[in-house]
This record gives sequence, structure tokens and C-alpha cells, in this order.
Amino acid sequence: MLVNGKHYRTIWLDESGTTVSIIDQTKLPYSFEFATLKTLNDACHAISSMQVRGAPLIGATAGYGFALACQVSSTDEALLAAKHQLIAARPTAVNLAWAANRLYDHVMPFDHDQRTAAAYACAAQICDEDVNVCESIGDYGLTLIENIAQSKPGPVNILTHCNAGWLATVDWGTALAPIYKAHQAGLDVHVWVDETRPRNQGAFLTAWELASHNIPHTVITDNAGGHLMQHKLVDLCLVGTDRTTATGDVCNKIGTYLKALAARANDVPFYVCLPSSTVDWEISDGLTEIPIEQRSGDEIRIMQGVTSSGQVAKIELFPEVSPVRNDAFDITPAELVSGLITERGIVEASREGLRELFPELALDVA
Amino acid sequence: MLVNGKHYRTIWLDESGTTVSIIDQTKLPYSFEFATLKTLNDACHAISSMQVRGAPLIGATAGYGFALACQVSSTDEALLAAKHQLIAARPTAVNLAWAANRLYDHVMPFDHDQRTAAAYACAAQICDEDVNVCESIGDYGLTLIENIAQSKPGPVNILTHCNAGWLATVDWGTALAPIYKAHQAGLDVHVWVDETRPRNQGAFLTAWELASHNIPHTVITDNAGGHLMQHKLVDLCLVGTDRTTATGDVCNKIGTYLKALAARANDVPFYVCLPSSTVDWEISDGLTEIPIEQRSGDEIRIMQGVTSSGQVAKIELFPEVSPVRNDAFDITPAELVSGLITERGIVEASREGLRELFPELALDVA
Repeated sequence: MLVNGKHYRTIWLDESGTTVSIIDQTKLPYSFEFATLKTLNDACHAISSMQVRGAPLIGATAGYGFALACQVSSTDEALLAAKHQLIAARPTAVNLAWAANRLYDHVMPFDHDQRTAAAYACAAQICDEDVNVCESIGDYGLTLIENIAQSKPGPVNILTHCNAGWLATVDWGTALAPIYKAHQAGLDVHVWVDETRPRNQGAFLTAWELASHNIPHTVITDNAGGHLMQHKLVDLCLVGTDRTTATGDVCNKIGTYLKALAARANDVPFYVCLPSSTVDWEISDGLTEIPIEQRSGDEIRIMQGVTSSGQVAKIELFPEVSPVRNDAFDITPAELVSGLITERGIVEASREGLRELFPELALDVA
Repeated sequence: MLVNGKHYRTIWLDESGTTVSIIDQTKLPYSFEFATLKTLNDACHAISSMQVRGAPLIGATAGYGFALACQVSSTDEALLAAKHQLIAARPTAVNLAWAANRLYDHVMPFDHDQRTAAAYACAAQICDEDVNVCESIGDYGLTLIENIAQSKPGPVNILTHCNAGWLATVDWGTALAPIYKAHQAGLDVHVWVDETRPRNQGAFLTAWELASHNIPHTVITDNAGGHLMQHKLVDLCLVGTDRTTATGDVCNKIGTYLKALAARANDVPFYVCLPSSTVDWEISDGLTEIPIEQRSGDEIRIMQGVTSSGQVAKIELFPEVSPVRNDAFDITPAELVSGLITERGIVEASREGLRELFPELALDVA
């Protein structure tokens, strides 16, 4: 997508053909900086320090991390070690293991002197596939926005939670892809951006993306969405998902469930945008089968921003005498989801719906 | 309530019998400081700068502000001017005008040399009445907590939003009064404290109150309550209200509505604690008849905390290129409210329910 009028991906191979560049997302929204990955360690650090984040982008970074490792040594032992090191960089990310395993399985059959080239090719393919998948999600989601635009005057108001934009993928994003497509098609869209406490991915990343692309948007507190829906100021909710059950339950950033409840209560369509790779075909009950990561309370207690003198600084909001609990995700039951927007089309959030589009992936269930 | 083991009200007459002390709430939670009100201007400043906040406490402060004005001059003109100055200090607060008018009407019939004493007596009475009303709310709410405590092992987990504690009143609070009563009665209670963006009254004030009183509590993001309810970690929601319709619709801090939706979806009782003075007997539809204050976007964009060197500082979270919308309140429809806890008892959130307890206040409606 565009930054200052120029097109970027979140990760790309440098002109050298060996080193890799990324947008350093820990610097956003205060400055737009790149980081260069020259080694496997650089790639692992980029993942663990969240210079890159978002399941698809983590996968792409793992792919190039593996290729960087091949450059140093492409022995069987070295590649196995590289795979394990990548998987350990951030163990909860499903796409990380998927990408590391894919690279390993792809590269191993080659002769040693061909492995590096094979790894770079496979990493590039992961990136291109992700772009295509996200663009397809955008095209299908666009049809929903077009329908709304035709049914009412003024902008189509879309609420989103967290960041499921191009910064979370290689390009386009998932939940934001239909919005970029609509903007490109000349439709009048406006985005309500949940700030998304505690890590503020909405205020820090989604708002930055949309501002950079000149898409009208407004940052709101996570508390505000229900009120806006009551007053008919939201036409559509679009969110991403970190993990989706085979029955359509959606595990996404904490607070997604509250918006889904408000959407249902106010007849606002609530769609979840996902590459099929986020579907866990082996589970069917999000509430009981998806463990929810509990993260450090410091994410709630400590906040980062810019001081009046322009320095990035952290402040403590309230003293440690008060304990904190920080659940990172919640489950939105399929029954609250109007539909799933996938790379193969829009489908009901149900086992039947998902099986219809992905028959080769869905498991047989008695 | 207790701070460092000592009992405080939020406002009190000094030993001199003339000047008035308040807890300076703009300093919380970083330091516990008092401010002295010596003049009407001091009182108006305390209200407008939010050294005192919360409808009942604003009313009490207005009462003493009027008494301080009487000390300087108790002519008819001076008292009328004092009344108007107080009402203008923060025009949206219902209790402010109510208290200023009550003082004025009470004092005017007296001879000039008796007016100051009458004003101090009336201000003291407003404070004592508020304490009694809040304590009654606490006693009635306690019965709910007792019932839950008898029905399950372990602590009674109560979720609250914003600050409807003793800092918002003269003592006891509204939503927190039942919790203080339960703690006093030796019941095992634990409070989930919504941080309450954007002004963080939960993290800044409610958490401080509870910590000061040694009541177990945990600060959570506003996003988390639904998830906790899904996992049976919330037994009861208790919130306050800024304005309540004659039919039981509740206007409270933005985000209250989302918690009420989650409570309903998960069979968690959702009670609203209120002095009857917050009921607006002339309106019956919260969504259409209660205007919602929109406040400065800086409340969302700018955050206050303490730096690593211990200084209170403000930081900007995200740049001004992204607009902000900041609605301060939302409406929870009566149908989502399990009951209203008032100074006369617990009642259904409906016109019939409120009329039953307050027949002399309810209007006849065809």
C-alpha cells in the first residue's frame, strides 16, 4: 500500500538479492523506518521483538530468515537448527511454524548447492501467495461495501478493531483489504478505528496505515463502538482473526467479542476476514479449545507515546499496588458472525460454510 | 472510606468552621493531597478543574461554595451572583444547579446576619444526606452480594466501569457502596476494574480507592469484560449512572452499554446504583432524549502518567493526522438492566418499578 505516495510491502528482498528489508513496526507511528535482515538471528529478532507482527507477515519473515540461514550453511543439520530457531522466536504464532516447516520441506530434497536459491524462491512465493490471498479477500469484501454504498447516501462507515491491515501481512491486509479496494474503486468510505487497548494497534498502526493512504478515518476508544452503532453510525464491522475453528468461531484481539455483540444488537453486519490458513480444522469449539494467551500486565500499566519535546517515552499509568490481568484475545462465537470473507469467497461462519469453500481441508466429522 | 487506615470524606469543613478541605482528585493516583477552599472562586475552580468530580460531590462542593460566598457578602445581589457563578462552573452537572438553587432558596428567607450560618448548615446537610443515601444503596446492594456469596465458593467477582466510588460522592460511593459494605461484612469480594478509557477513571480512581481500602481488585482493559464473563469470571456487574430516565434507561460512562450486552449474553446480573436524584422524571427514552457530551479528542490522544524518574508527564499517543471522536457517555436501555439499586431499595428498571419506590416524584403519564 502507499506511504507518502509510494508503494511498499512490509518485507522485500533487497537489490543485492540476499539481504531483506522490513518496515520496523516498533517505530510506528512516530517514524517510518526500515530494518535490514542479514542473518537468521536478525530475522528471529525481528519476529520476537515485534518489528514484524501479524501472522502472515511473521510467516513471510520466517521464510526469508530460513533463506538467510541457508546462505551461511545449507547442511541438513544447519537447516534443522534454523527451523527450530525460527519456530522458537514466537511460539504462539501458527504461521511461523507453518512457514519454517514449508521452507525446510521444500529445500531439503535439493542438492546442497541449490538449497539457497530454492529457499529464496520459496520465501518469495510465500510473500506473493500472501499478497494474492489478501487481494482476493479485498475483492470479495469489496462487494459488501459496494452493496451498502448503493443503499445509502454518504460514506460507508466501517468499524475495525486492532490492526488487520497491510502491516500485518505482506500487502493489502485482511480486514482492511476490502477498504483499500473500495477506496481504489472510488467509493466513499470512512473507518472507525478502535484504539485497541492495551497495545493500541488501532491507534498506532491502523490509523497510520489509513492516514498514509489518505483514507478517511477516526480513532475512537474501544468503549465507543456500541454507542456509535446505536446511533446508526456504523454500516459494517470488518475484523481479522488469529485462529478460526472449523465451525466458524473466531479468536481475535480482546474486545472483538464486545463489538460483535453490539453489532448483533443493532443489526450491523459483522464480517471476519481471513486467509484459510488461519482455520484450525481440528477444533470446533473456540471457547473451550483455544487457549487464550495472558500477557504482561505492563502492557496495560505502561504506555508509550511522544513527549512535548518530541521524544518517544514510556509512562506508568497507575501504581503497582493494583494488580492487572491482560488477556490478549477473546472468542466471538460463530453465531455472532455474519460471514467469513476468505480468499475463495464469502461464506457462512459454520462447518458447512467452510467445508463448501475448502472441501479439501475440512475434516470429516461424524 | 479508609486511606492509609484513616477515615476520610471527599469534602469536609475545617476546624476553623469556615474554610473547607477537599481531596484534590487531579493528583490521584500519584499523590494524596488536599486543597483548601477559602472563597467562592476556589470552589468554582475546584469544580471546573475537576479537583472534585462526580455529581454528588459537585453538589456538595457547590453547597460549601455558596456558604463561602455568604461569608464575604450575604446581600440578595451577592447571593444571586454566587448562585449563577456556581451553576456556570460546569454547566452539564445536574447536581450543581440543584445544590446551588437549594442553598439560595434555603438562605434567602433568613435575616442577613443569619444567612452565613444557615448556608453552612444547609451545605453540611447536603453532605450528610448524600452519605446516608449512598450508605442505603450500599446496604441494599449488599443483599445481592450476600446471595451470590452463599451460592458459590470463592470470592464474589464484581465488575465495575468508571468510578462510582466514594471519590464521586461525599462517602461510600454508589456502585462501590455495596462492595464496601460487603468487605465490611467480611465477605470475600474481588473487583474487576475497567480502566475506562479515555480518562482512566477506573485505573486512576477506582483502583486507588479499592487499594486504599485493601479490597482485592484487578485492573483490566475495557475490552476484557466480555471475555471474563464468557469464562464465568464475573458474578455481578455494578455501575453508576449520570442520568436515568423515568423508564429506567441509564446514561453512564461510554462503554457501559457494551458491558450490559455482554452481561445479558452470559447471564450475569447487571445492576445500576443510583441516588434517586439522578432520575430525570421528565424523559422516557434515553437514546433520543439524552444528549451525549462530545469531549476533546485530546482526552484520547494524550495520556498522563509517571515517568521513570517519577515525574507526572503527558505523552501523545498518535499524531494529529488521525482525527478523534470522543463521546463521553452512552445509553444502556432499561431492558438490559437487571435492576436499579436506590436509597429506597432495589427495583425493576422500568417506569412501574421507579414509580413504586418514588411515587411522589414519578410523573403521571397517560
